[in-house]
Amino acid sequence: MRNYKLTIEYDGSDFYGWQVQPGRRTVQGELYRALEEFGPDAVKVVGAGRTDAGVHASGQVASVKADLELDCVTMRKALNAKLPKDIMIRNAEQVPLSFNARFDAKRRTYQYIFIMRKSALWRRYFLSVPDSLDVDRMHRALLDLPGERDFSSFASAGDDCSSKRCNLMRADLIENKPLLIFEVTADHFLYNMVRAMAGTLLDIGRGREIDLDGIVRARDRSLAGSTLPPYALYLIDVCY
Amino acid sequence: MRNYKLTIEYDGSDFYGWQVQPGRRTVQGELYRALEEFGPDAVKVVGAGRTDAGVHASGQVASVKADLELDCVTMRKALNAKLPKDIMIRNAEQVPLSFNARFDAKRRTYQYIFIMRKSALWRRYFLSVPDSLDVDRMHRALLDLPGERDFSSFASAGDDCSSKRCNLMRADLIENKPLLIFEVTADHFLYNMVRAMAGTLLDIGRGREIDLDGIVRARDRSLAGSTLPPYALYLIDVCY
Repeated sequence: MRNYKLTIEYDGSDFYGWQVQPGRRTVQGELYRALEEFGPDAVKVVGAGRTDAGVHASGQVASVKADLELDCVTMRKALNAKLPKDIMIRNAEQVPLSFNARFDAKRRTYQYIFIMRKSALWRRYFLSVPDSLDVDRMHRALLDLPGERDFSSFASAGDDCSSKRCNLMRADLIENKPLLIFEVTADHFLYNMVRAMAGTLLDIGRGREIDLDGIVRARDRSLAGSTLPPYALYLIDVCY
Repeated sequence: MRNYKLTIEYDGSDFYGWQVQPGRRTVQGELYRALEEFGPDAVKVVGAGRTDAGVHASGQVASVKADLELDCVTMRKALNAKLPKDIMIRNAEQVPLSFNARFDAKRRTYQYIFIMRKSALWRRYFLSVPDSLDVDRMHRALLDLPGERDFSSFASAGDDCSSKRCNLMRADLIENKPLLIFEVTADHFLYNMVRAMAGTLLDIGRGREIDLDGIVRARDRSLAGSTLPPYALYLIDVCY
């Protein structure tokens, strides 16, 4: 039995998210299918982030336990040969059997990417925002966000974490015209948390008077902005 | 009768190119269809660049002659309401009846966009180049390209221009990691010319000894690199 740590990129457009679901095309499901071709041995795939339908990743991490004797380079190449084109293994390394991609993750980083004009292009990858945004104001507002706090105000119904406390380490805004990138790092995220934060940030950029710190303190989802669509969200990094 | 100059963005992924073809979805065809809804009057649509299947545009220009009395803002909004989401009118202005978007164009600018790593993301928009490229070498090679010259060496069979002379004004390379953008401006382009230049430039970046100036002089298509795929090509600007 070996344990492999895989770093994975995928285009979420044509997946029902990460997690295996019967009868639906998922990233984890395609990984299981590709791994099965190596032989009938028991395999277990654990992902660091259970991304939703439509969400992309350039740095998802999975741990794969399998009765295989492949070295890491062979593992990566053989998997890439078997996987569909919208999934790619960027790196494979062997790790101790105790390593678990989900529970051992120290922090995850997501990006939510806006395109700051009306757009017919790249509609499945960036959220088009035709309004002119007050980017300085968005920058200032984000200073209030980090900390180890209860983020219930940004969690959708359906979140199954027992605690709503997250350690949000960094929230930043990167301008790369015509793109505007909201980048956020935390030990873990609640269900739809990044998309709700991005929606609230957008309201701030549009001039709404919003006190992010107050919203967090209130622990009331109705005070935050709307949950933005999944297709502009990217899981870009997981650290251990 | 009025003449409108439209600036148009489109995602070429699901079109058989610009030009009307019976039974196929094209950008010009969709424009005719949207314009027909304004009434049964005679309409003529002329595009500055007849982009191929899969090629995108953020700055295509078309002239539209029609028996309509719409002001420009109404024209733009009404067209956008009728057009599919992968076409967008960015601007509409009224121009003299003599204006022809194709024959009056002074220069056109295209971009060919590489993504400098293997990629599962954005596969319909950028060409993934996993090799490490010598970007300085590509920069230096491009210095040889501009001029008013016969560019037969970069024209595919099927080009219907009577003269193969083009005035190539500018050829540049812009790094915006992980993207590498080849941007080129000329009075007009021969068939597949940008895609053949991009292919040759890629060979140079990969270390092949290529003398761009010599290739142009030889007027021999077999000396240049291959024609790269259409989906990473963008018509970004037309000047009059």
